[in-house]
Amino acid sequence: MRTGHRLLALAGALAVPLAVSAQDEQPAADTAKSAYTLPGDIREQAVELRDSAAENSRAFETVTSLTTEVGNRLAGSAGDRAAVAWALLKLRELGFDNVRAEKVNVPHWVRGNLDAEIAAPFPQHLVATSLGGSIGTTEEGIEAPVIMADNMAALKDMDPDDVGDKIVFIADPMQRTRDGSGYGKAVMKRVNGAAEAARLGARAVVIRSVGTGNSRIAHTGITIYNPEVRRIPAIAISNPDADMLQRQLATGHDVTVRIASTARYLPPAESANVIGEIPGSDDDAGMVLLAAHLDSWDVGTGAIDDGAGVAIVTEAARLVGEMHGKPKRTIRVVLFANEEFGLSGAKAYAKAHADEIGDHVLAMEADFGAGRVWRLGSNVPEDQLPRVAAFARLLEPLGVERGENGSEGGADIGPLNAKGVPVLAPVQDGTHYFDWHHTIDDTPDKIDPAALNQNVAVYATLAYLAANLDEDFGRVPEHAEEPGFGPGSKQEDEDEEKASDGN
Amino acid sequence: MRTGHRLLALAGALAVPLAVSAQDEQPAADTAKSAYTLPGDIREQAVELRDSAAENSRAFETVTSLTTEVGNRLAGSAGDRAAVAWALLKLRELGFDNVRAEKVNVPHWVRGNLDAEIAAPFPQHLVATSLGGSIGTTEEGIEAPVIMADNMAALKDMDPDDVGDKIVFIADPMQRTRDGSGYGKAVMKRVNGAAEAARLGARAVVIRSVGTGNSRIAHTGITIYNPEVRRIPAIAISNPDADMLQRQLATGHDVTVRIASTARYLPPAESANVIGEIPGSDDDAGMVLLAAHLDSWDVGTGAIDDGAGVAIVTEAARLVGEMHGKPKRTIRVVLFANEEFGLSGAKAYAKAHADEIGDHVLAMEADFGAGRVWRLGSNVPEDQLPRVAAFARLLEPLGVERGENGSEGGADIGPLNAKGVPVLAPVQDGTHYFDWHHTIDDTPDKIDPAALNQNVAVYATLAYLAANLDEDFGRVPEHAEEPGFGPGSKQEDEDEEKASDGN
Repeated sequence: MRTGHRLLALAGALAVPLAVSAQDEQPAADTAKSAYTLPGDIREQAVELRDSAAENSRAFETVTSLTTEVGNRLAGSAGDRAAVAWALLKLRELGFDNVRAEKVNVPHWVRGNLDAEIAAPFPQHLVATSLGGSIGTTEEGIEAPVIMADNMAALKDMDPDDVGDKIVFIADPMQRTRDGSGYGKAVMKRVNGAAEAARLGARAVVIRSVGTGNSRIAHTGITIYNPEVRRIPAIAISNPDADMLQRQLATGHDVTVRIASTARYLPPAESANVIGEIPGSDDDAGMVLLAAHLDSWDVGTGAIDDGAGVAIVTEAARLVGEMHGKPKRTIRVVLFANEEFGLSGAKAYAKAHADEIGDHVLAMEADFGAGRVWRLGSNVPEDQLPRVAAFARLLEPLGVERGENGSEGGADIGPLNAKGVPVLAPVQDGTHYFDWHHTIDDTPDKIDPAALNQNVAVYATLAYLAANLDEDFGRVPEHAEEPGFGPGSKQEDEDEEKASDGN
Repeated sequence: MRTGHRLLALAGALAVPLAVSAQDEQPAADTAKSAYTLPGDIREQAVELRDSAAENSRAFETVTSLTTEVGNRLAGSAGDRAAVAWALLKLRELGFDNVRAEKVNVPHWVRGNLDAEIAAPFPQHLVATSLGGSIGTTEEGIEAPVIMADNMAALKDMDPDDVGDKIVFIADPMQRTRDGSGYGKAVMKRVNGAAEAARLGARAVVIRSVGTGNSRIAHTGITIYNPEVRRIPAIAISNPDADMLQRQLATGHDVTVRIASTARYLPPAESANVIGEIPGSDDDAGMVLLAAHLDSWDVGTGAIDDGAGVAIVTEAARLVGEMHGKPKRTIRVVLFANEEFGLSGAKAYAKAHADEIGDHVLAMEADFGAGRVWRLGSNVPEDQLPRVAAFARLLEPLGVERGENGSEGGADIGPLNAKGVPVLAPVQDGTHYFDWHHTIDDTPDKIDPAALNQNVAVYATLAYLAANLDEDFGRVPEHAEEPGFGPGSKQEDEDEEKASDGN
């Protein structure tokens, strides 16, 4: 996955299932089909665990508890603090050991209020939301003519004389796919649209929501400014509102949009990675890490992103802990702080645990909703492929096929993978994920409890196997950690206090 | 339909397809199966019209024009005035004759701003909207404990000692059905919930949205106070928010909700019924009336409710006018003012045209979205049933079956039907209608242009037949007009200026 592609470098902040991007570049897993047979007793236990978890787990109870008692929990917010408190209590209640919060410094951006409307030729209110990290406007707002770019490529080709002092509207819609690949294509306008439009002299950028829903609900998510170009406000409008704006532009009249926003940064805040363990019987055998992120965007209740992940990994570990006898290796659950707004928790964990990276035998993350797992990706050494193939065969009754060996496994465990930790990457069905994620619609009614249990069964089975097989998984080649471009990065930390008026 | 059921009396304000409620009470249409054969030339023309309209019409263009250039248009609003201007221009542009606006006095309620949240035990923002006609609150709002009623029946049985000074939450969800029958069951809490809760001493009422969508979008619609009980604020919360509130209540903690609203009445305003005609060749043959309503709720763009109806009846009449030779009878299109908030336009039309009611040979209305027509209801004299059966057979290739003879045809033509005018009632597929109607999501992307054309084909075929057959349709028995309980009624006109603080 060491490509120079900026999207991949940003993957942490984007939560794209990375296995997808790698499909075309990686050797198929079945090139290494030499036989591996699971030890009979372990196989038997794993099958029993798999089948009972798929039938019944507490995962849905956990995600409804988090969304009901905490709700949304953007880094630095009151909800973020409440989530840390919730997680400490919940992990203890579920029987985890060594439950603790490890401090993480996080940026603290607030959305404030946003009013957006088409002012002319036909006045209409716009359902809109600020992009994460966007600056606001002055009180009177920005009112300017709109110029449309079909997509980012078209924007890059535009003449600054045409764009200057206008509001740029980037119009391309996202395609619905099972593997989420439509997201990678559509999201660049959210990440880089403001920077690019600002370079051309625009006063603000309006993007069509990077989402597949046809509800009049706008999708947020991080936007990343270019430190060398002044910042401009960046907002997303819902798909039906984007259609409306395009129809008004198609009338041939000049179209004017007005935006007034109080989005802004507050001083950085403290959050925490919350950790709990199912202790292993062999202190020298290392540990298996299961990851999800505890934070969410500030607009929904963080049910599919990533309350579901929190529930899946927590429940998977708990179920292994419920089995007869301790696992050989410790299973460590880490609920990471601030994935959405700069991967602060992932970076802090990798730093704080630098001395014990070698003890991480394997890592897995759940951060793509609650759709059924349909593929098992990985990033393990070549000689481990027969073992992963055997794992995948064990998951076949759950509808899981073997995928590629080209995954980084997820945003929060990326830094561990970069330091050589092998990863397994169950890939969830993302057909409907982008209808809801990063919106007010991220609520637990969007989760099918049976599909959630299937996820638990997959993660529990893999965690059990990884924790109990005698041999570990070796190491993957280390590689330089991607620098990250989110607000958690150094450049952004310096920038975020700068005054800006958005005009 | 002369039942004493309050729901039916209110039907105008509710836009329930009335044929549905009447199903069980009316004789089946096939009890009168004596043969009727359409004259060959008329049948031939009708088939040609049917098939060409189904293939191609301007209806989708019309509804996107209305939603794009006007948007929402609640009675009395600036959008309402813009809609009247739009309709006059559009009918002239489409070639109608005698295009005119007939003045209608309308109430003018404004939604203002609404903030609603669960304040305790677990603070969460609520996606909510005021019900139409609701009073607002004082600036500081209302904060009170919540008591839940499973439904209206449960509320009626409650003890005032339990309800007093609380906020009542009415929780029952609406069932999805093709014929819209779930609406009639669920909507009574919206119409009467505030009056009933106020009678028991509540400070405000919160209802689960009367809609089938799982988006975090709240449904509005009229609420009707009891003139003998003080008014209390009435709001709806989205289905996922209602789930959330129920989950918090289920924790056993006391739940407190806060509501602050600036909803209020402004002085009554002027609007208009907009009328256009396709003149007939025989001045003495009477006319066929096609109806839709021009107003909409103030939250979406009024695409399915009732921009689609405007487009369907306008296009149906235009296509008849495009045929070789004038129709025998005049086809009059009436785009009614203020259906949603008290049927002002329907009442004004019936009054202003009292002298020519006898000239209305037949009336049809389109006000149930843009789903395919699947049934042809009617309210015609018994001896006309063979003719309607012949019409229905002609529509079979469009997927239309013959329905019952128990319809009033729709809210806006109800007063005409009450005075003896026969009606035909094409029934549209309402499976998804209640996902979107009365919400911000009522936008033209929810309309399938092919289904809209099928509607046009049905209405055009029926209008052509009704306008060209030699014999008229007789008269149905006159009946007393239902008094109406909306803000357009006299009692409400007197009440609406009263000061009220909502506390």
